[in-house]
Amino acid sequence: MIRRFPVLAAAAALLGLLMIPTESYGDEGMWLFNNPPRAQLKAKYNFEPTDAWLEHLQKSSVRFNSGGSGSFVSPDGLVMTNHHVAAHDLDKVSTPEKNYLRDGFHAKSNADEIKCKGLELNVLQSIKVVTDEVKAAVKPGMSPPEAFKARQAKIAEIEKGAADETNNIRADVVTLYAGGQYHLYTFKKYTDIRIVFAPEKQIAFFGGDPDNFEYPRYDLDMAFFRVYQNDKPIKCEHYLKWSDNGSKEGELAFVSGHPGRTNRMNTIAELKYLRDTGYPYVLQRLNRWEVMLQAWGGRSERNMQRCEEDLFSIQNSRKARLGGLGGLLDPKLFGRKEAEEKRLRDFLASSSAPSELRDAGGAFDVIAKAEKIRAEIIRPYTMLEGGAGFNSASFGIARTLLRASEELPKPSGERLREFADARLPSLKFQLLSDEPIFEDLEIVKLADGLSYLSTTLGPDHELVQQVLAGKSPRDRAYELISGTKVRDPEFRKKLFDGGKAAVDGAKDPMIELARLVDPMSRSLRKRSENEVEEPKRGAYASLAQARYAMDGDKVYPDATFSLRLAFGTIKGYKEDGKDVPAFTTMAGLYERSKEQANKGPFELPKRWEERKSKLDLKTPFNFVCTADIIGGNSGSPVVNAKGEVIGLIFDGNIQSLVLDFAFTDEQARAVSVHSSAIQECLRKIYGAAPLADELGK
Amino acid sequence: MIRRFPVLAAAAALLGLLMIPTESYGDEGMWLFNNPPRAQLKAKYNFEPTDAWLEHLQKSSVRFNSGGSGSFVSPDGLVMTNHHVAAHDLDKVSTPEKNYLRDGFHAKSNADEIKCKGLELNVLQSIKVVTDEVKAAVKPGMSPPEAFKARQAKIAEIEKGAADETNNIRADVVTLYAGGQYHLYTFKKYTDIRIVFAPEKQIAFFGGDPDNFEYPRYDLDMAFFRVYQNDKPIKCEHYLKWSDNGSKEGELAFVSGHPGRTNRMNTIAELKYLRDTGYPYVLQRLNRWEVMLQAWGGRSERNMQRCEEDLFSIQNSRKARLGGLGGLLDPKLFGRKEAEEKRLRDFLASSSAPSELRDAGGAFDVIAKAEKIRAEIIRPYTMLEGGAGFNSASFGIARTLLRASEELPKPSGERLREFADARLPSLKFQLLSDEPIFEDLEIVKLADGLSYLSTTLGPDHELVQQVLAGKSPRDRAYELISGTKVRDPEFRKKLFDGGKAAVDGAKDPMIELARLVDPMSRSLRKRSENEVEEPKRGAYASLAQARYAMDGDKVYPDATFSLRLAFGTIKGYKEDGKDVPAFTTMAGLYERSKEQANKGPFELPKRWEERKSKLDLKTPFNFVCTADIIGGNSGSPVVNAKGEVIGLIFDGNIQSLVLDFAFTDEQARAVSVHSSAIQECLRKIYGAAPLADELGK
Repeated sequence: MIRRFPVLAAAAALLGLLMIPTESYGDEGMWLFNNPPRAQLKAKYNFEPTDAWLEHLQKSSVRFNSGGSGSFVSPDGLVMTNHHVAAHDLDKVSTPEKNYLRDGFHAKSNADEIKCKGLELNVLQSIKVVTDEVKAAVKPGMSPPEAFKARQAKIAEIEKGAADETNNIRADVVTLYAGGQYHLYTFKKYTDIRIVFAPEKQIAFFGGDPDNFEYPRYDLDMAFFRVYQNDKPIKCEHYLKWSDNGSKEGELAFVSGHPGRTNRMNTIAELKYLRDTGYPYVLQRLNRWEVMLQAWGGRSERNMQRCEEDLFSIQNSRKARLGGLGGLLDPKLFGRKEAEEKRLRDFLASSSAPSELRDAGGAFDVIAKAEKIRAEIIRPYTMLEGGAGFNSASFGIARTLLRASEELPKPSGERLREFADARLPSLKFQLLSDEPIFEDLEIVKLADGLSYLSTTLGPDHELVQQVLAGKSPRDRAYELISGTKVRDPEFRKKLFDGGKAAVDGAKDPMIELARLVDPMSRSLRKRSENEVEEPKRGAYASLAQARYAMDGDKVYPDATFSLRLAFGTIKGYKEDGKDVPAFTTMAGLYERSKEQANKGPFELPKRWEERKSKLDLKTPFNFVCTADIIGGNSGSPVVNAKGEVIGLIFDGNIQSLVLDFAFTDEQARAVSVHSSAIQECLRKIYGAAPLADELGK
Repeated sequence: MIRRFPVLAAAAALLGLLMIPTESYGDEGMWLFNNPPRAQLKAKYNFEPTDAWLEHLQKSSVRFNSGGSGSFVSPDGLVMTNHHVAAHDLDKVSTPEKNYLRDGFHAKSNADEIKCKGLELNVLQSIKVVTDEVKAAVKPGMSPPEAFKARQAKIAEIEKGAADETNNIRADVVTLYAGGQYHLYTFKKYTDIRIVFAPEKQIAFFGGDPDNFEYPRYDLDMAFFRVYQNDKPIKCEHYLKWSDNGSKEGELAFVSGHPGRTNRMNTIAELKYLRDTGYPYVLQRLNRWEVMLQAWGGRSERNMQRCEEDLFSIQNSRKARLGGLGGLLDPKLFGRKEAEEKRLRDFLASSSAPSELRDAGGAFDVIAKAEKIRAEIIRPYTMLEGGAGFNSASFGIARTLLRASEELPKPSGERLREFADARLPSLKFQLLSDEPIFEDLEIVKLADGLSYLSTTLGPDHELVQQVLAGKSPRDRAYELISGTKVRDPEFRKKLFDGGKAAVDGAKDPMIELARLVDPMSRSLRKRSENEVEEPKRGAYASLAQARYAMDGDKVYPDATFSLRLAFGTIKGYKEDGKDVPAFTTMAGLYERSKEQANKGPFELPKRWEERKSKLDLKTPFNFVCTADIIGGNSGSPVVNAKGEVIGLIFDGNIQSLVLDFAFTDEQARAVSVHSSAIQECLRKIYGAAPLADELGK
């Protein structure tokens, strides 16, 4: 499953690292709608998109600001996306009696549609290049901070001029090519979004973790919303028609959606860090936690209920990292990255490089040095500032209370970034949430964390000895968890509101533990910010500008959770010498379930058992194509050359997980629900013929 | 579950490292029957075992040479042990139609009892101290190899003089205190052993991995054999009576059995290696493999069947190491080990140390240096010589074929030790076994191994590049596994018999891979043997002799798979602030199963469901006591002060896993089946009243 792209990360990406690949490769590219891959489409597919074709697809595409993509599929504001993009909203509107996330939802009429809480959708209306305007704001002789300020002021001015709150027009200046270009995006903004339909989670995520990121696949990962204005469904000028026949093997397909972030400009030094240190180390942690939760969860059903959400999220990350590492360990792919880097280095050393970029080559060394420091500090950093050595919700809360008491008296700009005024509401919301925290699970996790800390820093390390206070990790974890009061939201509120005096006076053992480790933790954070993140930010910006100087906009920029057009061919691939076919069928779903004794994640919802005989089992269910996608593309429509819906992106296979760094279409595939399966299930399983009729009508 | 103690390891222990703890602690000790803990028993329990009491318990105790313990429990040669000690034999006599290991076995009459293949039982008859005789064989002025040879010759002579093949008398000289003492053990040897009874594996190992090493517990881990001579059950003079009431909380209990190996003499340098490097690293590997097999096994039931034995064995090791590491990370326990070492160092520095031992203090430095080298080479050693970088049965076979072709032409004494003449039959047996090897699992494991190798040595390492040959780990694994013929036993036989010419001529890709890595692999092995193992062997022998000089036989020697007497109190313990009671009941079994929805490892055998109403649910099922046990004690009888059976050892809790290094009775507990549960189940579940009547009659 492609996870919803977290919006905080998206925000970072918007500020952050962007790229230009040197030469596109196969069906590579997450293209801007105002700079589509006309040459590539013409050369390989003899296809020439008209401006009208592009405008229609763009205005039919929808961004879920909760992190995901979607599309209008009827004139009455019907929006199609993934079940896993809708999951958060389904959960929020569920009640103790009605679990819509697990059991699905179906509004038989508009009146039954349920309004979501806090969901915003954006539809891109226009793109205007404002690069010159933004760049002109920076005057010769300005210091970097002055330049930054001047640029931000100009961007704010442009956005303000284009936004129109009364008409729900939102305007964002999107930074592309790390500042090579600035584009003004104006959106229609919708905030009255209602849930129309979702199937059972069991079929949306059929196969669970075992089949996650795998193919062949059999998931109905879909959901429908409707957009309202003034309490009425909107009328859409642009929405996607439905294909009568769906997709065929070998057919050209387009994906229009919002890839969250890619890191295709990563230097070889950074890729080596990730390949040799970062990924192996994070996998080691994920393996450790997965085994710990599996073992504890296996002890009882109650335990499993308490940890299965954490467990799934760990398994999902583990697979994602394994896929990424698999790609980085492929000498062919790595060799291509080396060749790309060499091309840029050669350009910078050549006479064709603009004089002001001659020094940009030094950025490679800056990044290499930063990666060296990153590798040096990653283990203690992860234990302390990353919290792995105190793995528990209780420690996280205790540290937040402690740091809030120290940070909030400072001016906003001088605080640790998560305590800045702008972020305080969401920090407070999380801190005071009354989500249950289970004491027994907390002990198991913290004991493991303390043991991990001990073997990482060494049990003879002074801080470890102070942390353990002469006890074994397990005994100390029990003492801390049973002794702290931070699991009580009332206590948290009292301390948060009471400030430093209240926090210091509480003498809570977990807060005192946080206090004990904070000096070393903060100093590691400072090193990471000053010696790794900050120098890299500058260096990558130079390199991106250097690439832009080399290639201009002949290539696409790194993903930034802005609307992109990807394209590819519907086709299978070879794995371990066997052909993996492009399509699965409904018959395959039932076979897969039967072969797994209809158990666990392979258990079919009741309706699917009961109504099997009504289905045409030859109906294609899922399919794969070579389009270039990444997290954030979840829910993107797949359309044919006529712009008709043929599928719904919901996943990439494990080989696609390297797309973060480099495109490949040897085995990497985007995985979609087939449009015919959507029709077939709505009509024959869910008795939702009116909804099926509405699709693309 | 305490695993059967592997006999190869037992043989190593017999040659190897022994110890004397400085002061016994609580109910500490695995005592020799000719030097029982009279003072401790008198002081703490006011109990004085008579010679007759000791002789009776000794002669009722049985050693399973397959690795485990047992006891005579009837005058007609009935032997009680664990289901998991019997598992290998149950498996060997099973047929495609009758799976006795899974479904259990019950011989209604002697005629139905099934003869085991290759199982030998030993019963200790007498112990004679031969220390002076053995030591006298070493003359002043002999070089260490000459001394070794002279000692071995004397031992062989003593054993030969005492053995009596025609009367089935076996004689072993047991090396204790690392050569501080030599004892001649004579045994009655039995080789006609028949299976009488075993329950279903599902109840013998109820709770599976989740409850393994945990407490409370509900396992009927028992099995019965009968010893025959001349085709008739033997008549036993010594066998254990059955207790009418079983055990009570707070009661004194004895365990008579064969603990395999302990390492209580380990120096602080070695314990620090294990705590800081060895255990964390092995746990990292076990976590990795557990996650890999869980993920692959989760993809289909067929996959799970193919990997579940490996998976369980990994989970079992993982828990064992976690328990051991938990103990080593306990500052109290580690502090005690430091104090013990200081006491020995002080003794050696004092005037009371015999002059010939004054230099023994240098042994600490020798070991510290060896541990430093061990830490340096453990990662590449594990990848190459340990085979983790080529994790597959196919690689193991290929390497054995390659090395056999190189080693066998040499004289036996100069070969790698596993190719010595004495070991060839078992090596050949394993090499030519037709146990199935699954191609798909091999690819998954090897791909993971190659990836592990790459990130351990670094993908830029020359050997890694040669191994991968320009391919990704997964592609290379597919190429190797699909290309090799070593999975065909006929092919293996042809190459093994054909020697170097055949092996070189085969041009098999997996054998060529083994050839590629062998120079580096062998050189790491040589370093480990010459710079770690060999110096440590000598240094530990000096330290053991030094300790013997300090304390004599006031303390017990390290375990050596020879018969030992342990003692303790039946009592619960505190965990996370809660009381864990000493006993469980049959009612608890049904509750545990119900709470787990009677699923997976918590599914009860049918008979247990059907006959629940017949059972007295208040019957105690399992219990814990503080006796000092370790792997090899599996199947040991637990007796009361009257020498009556009150239980059957089958496990230790996770806190007991540190007993390898140090005794503790704070939370460490031995886990037993209660004698009353054995009676109750035989009568009411299994319709085996005659067998129940025979017990201790």
